[in-house]
Amino acid sequence: MKAVGLVTEYNPFHNGHIYHIQQAKAVTGADVVIAVMSGNFVQRGEPALFDKWTRTQAALANGVDLVIELPTFYAVQPSHLFAEGAIKLLTALGVEDVVFGSEHATVDFLNLAKQAPSVQGGKAFQEKNQTFAQAYATQLESETGFKLEDPNDILAFGYAKAILNLNSPIKLHAIQRVAAGYHDQSFTDDQTIASASSIRLALHKGKLEKVKGVVPNQTLVDISSANHTVDFESQFWPLLKYRLMTDTIGQLGQVYQMAEGLEHRLAAVALGEPGPQSYQSFIKAVKSKRYTFARIQRTLLYTLLNVKVDQMQAAMQDPYLRILGFTDKGQAYLNGAKKTTTLPLISKVDQHLAKANLRLDFKAGKLWQLLAREPGQQQDIARQPIHFTQAHTKEDK
Amino acid sequence: MKAVGLVTEYNPFHNGHIYHIQQAKAVTGADVVIAVMSGNFVQRGEPALFDKWTRTQAALANGVDLVIELPTFYAVQPSHLFAEGAIKLLTALGVEDVVFGSEHATVDFLNLAKQAPSVQGGKAFQEKNQTFAQAYATQLESETGFKLEDPNDILAFGYAKAILNLNSPIKLHAIQRVAAGYHDQSFTDDQTIASASSIRLALHKGKLEKVKGVVPNQTLVDISSANHTVDFESQFWPLLKYRLMTDTIGQLGQVYQMAEGLEHRLAAVALGEPGPQSYQSFIKAVKSKRYTFARIQRTLLYTLLNVKVDQMQAAMQDPYLRILGFTDKGQAYLNGAKKTTTLPLISKVDQHLAKANLRLDFKAGKLWQLLAREPGQQQDIARQPIHFTQAHTKEDK
Repeated sequence: MKAVGLVTEYNPFHNGHIYHIQQAKAVTGADVVIAVMSGNFVQRGEPALFDKWTRTQAALANGVDLVIELPTFYAVQPSHLFAEGAIKLLTALGVEDVVFGSEHATVDFLNLAKQAPSVQGGKAFQEKNQTFAQAYATQLESETGFKLEDPNDILAFGYAKAILNLNSPIKLHAIQRVAAGYHDQSFTDDQTIASASSIRLALHKGKLEKVKGVVPNQTLVDISSANHTVDFESQFWPLLKYRLMTDTIGQLGQVYQMAEGLEHRLAAVALGEPGPQSYQSFIKAVKSKRYTFARIQRTLLYTLLNVKVDQMQAAMQDPYLRILGFTDKGQAYLNGAKKTTTLPLISKVDQHLAKANLRLDFKAGKLWQLLAREPGQQQDIARQPIHFTQAHTKEDK
Repeated sequence: MKAVGLVTEYNPFHNGHIYHIQQAKAVTGADVVIAVMSGNFVQRGEPALFDKWTRTQAALANGVDLVIELPTFYAVQPSHLFAEGAIKLLTALGVEDVVFGSEHATVDFLNLAKQAPSVQGGKAFQEKNQTFAQAYATQLESETGFKLEDPNDILAFGYAKAILNLNSPIKLHAIQRVAAGYHDQSFTDDQTIASASSIRLALHKGKLEKVKGVVPNQTLVDISSANHTVDFESQFWPLLKYRLMTDTIGQLGQVYQMAEGLEHRLAAVALGEPGPQSYQSFIKAVKSKRYTFARIQRTLLYTLLNVKVDQMQAAMQDPYLRILGFTDKGQAYLNGAKKTTTLPLISKVDQHLAKANLRLDFKAGKLWQLLAREPGQQQDIARQPIHFTQAHTKEDK
């Protein structure tokens, strides 16, 4: 069986994702669609709108055959590490092709990656008033003429770099992003595809009617069940404030990605009087030109999760393939992959795993439940992968 | 000027405290009444109902001349350390007499303390199914014939032991507890004095009318302002659960008074599914016969405050006299005491002190604000001691 891989967050699952799945099959002629998906927290350091099981269910109901969790230590990372983690898992599963959306689908990203500057080189890295990504893009443009600035292009570049680094046989296929830019914050009533961020914004504002045209019906059902994190900030901020006011500067300084004395600023702002009244105003108060919003938010999430540098480095050395769900076809593919994969396949998490390799995902699941309006089912211990069958689909309708 | 010392929590300030102040003056003929008072957290490991400034105001309005904060590292402790901390501060202030309520006011507690067994001795300490305090009381009874079991007697015994340990010149004066036992959970409409715990219970149930007869009017005004912690458990439990789910067992094991592997039980219960739904059910699930309710609750508070054994031991080596408020008479007494006291007198807390000696009180104040229905004013930085004058009193009426 030939498998095509997708790197996804499905936050939430929407019509654009259905188009992506259809195109992936059409472009590659694959029999099986495998999605590597962020778990309960997404790349920008936020809880996913719905938990990983709900999003797995949506993916399986709409054409994906196998959903593998991108572990938290890969998912909540800058794009190059996010991309490398995903490519590593897909390579281990024997996937031959990866199809992704891009703002510049005609660009040969693998070729671009081959010409890319090494991270340390170039004078652009001296500038203080820009983020690392901006500095890197400036350097890349001066050497190749291509301006790497759109989010899907940046991810595509990350996949290409990862393929080179890992010596992976995966072939990349870009499809042109249509209708909705990643950062578009609004959409019209006659659109059938909208960006995930604009959908989240509409849901946050309670505009369910507006969202109807751009998501499968199940997403509307899920949002009405209250087991979601649309309003997570009202829970996130008191917990973060509590953490910042009780940990020592020394403890905060050990948090993953806490760099350049950022811990001092975080503590000073959190403990100030009257102090920020919301998560958004806190981030505004601590943000500098050196960091992107997402970078700050990821660091704050790692602060909240109490993840230290050494724990993170150890975890990243030890990846695994956590199976969240499959169709019959996905199961058949898995049976073949079992014999060849070099990474451990995990279908059930017990107390031992929750304290060892999967500790970070386990903590993330517990935190997700705490941030959701209703905690719902536990996320890891004793949960079985979803086996999605056509009968099941009918039952759901 | 002759000063009498009172060891207090004023949680909340009630008519029994007025009686205590009057008796203290009558028994000793003192000119000045000095109260050492728990700060924002009380001995049983709970946030005080009102913050330390509100309670200081009530004390000054009702006959106390000087209020000194009992630092958190003394206040939130078993009774012998609580008592020793208070006696240490009162001794440093040149206080000659301490007057306290007792269930057995005719007992000579100093004499009892002289006959007391040393902590290590005796076979009663071998029993596993009792608390340390029970074991000690059993041993004491077998040697002296006196059954030390009532809470105010236990504190009195603590004062006496402290006087011996510190070689303090303080003389103890017991007054018989009247009308309300420490643990009485109810009171009748014709009572004018009720126990603090029964008053807290009535306030928790929203029975303001019932409380009118046993507290000064100001307490009723304070409860209506929402800057109080009557419902603290609904805030306390999610924060504690969050702490237990994100810290490692190693980190939890370093918390002050975390003994005999208790951290494993706390984490296992907190992370279990479905898990306790409230703070009370959590405590019930983790409590054993080896620990009193108060002991468990103090340990949980130190867990929430993230206070480690070494930090606590260092803090206890370095006590101070934090001035919360005074009358003119109290101020005059302070001016004299300044010249002779061996402990630092602190009237204003800046960022430096908040990060050094007073760090624990500072954190406790921040946590108190987080647990209160409305956070109110900040508790430490730049707060001035209350200077209470008669004009001020009139203004308040």
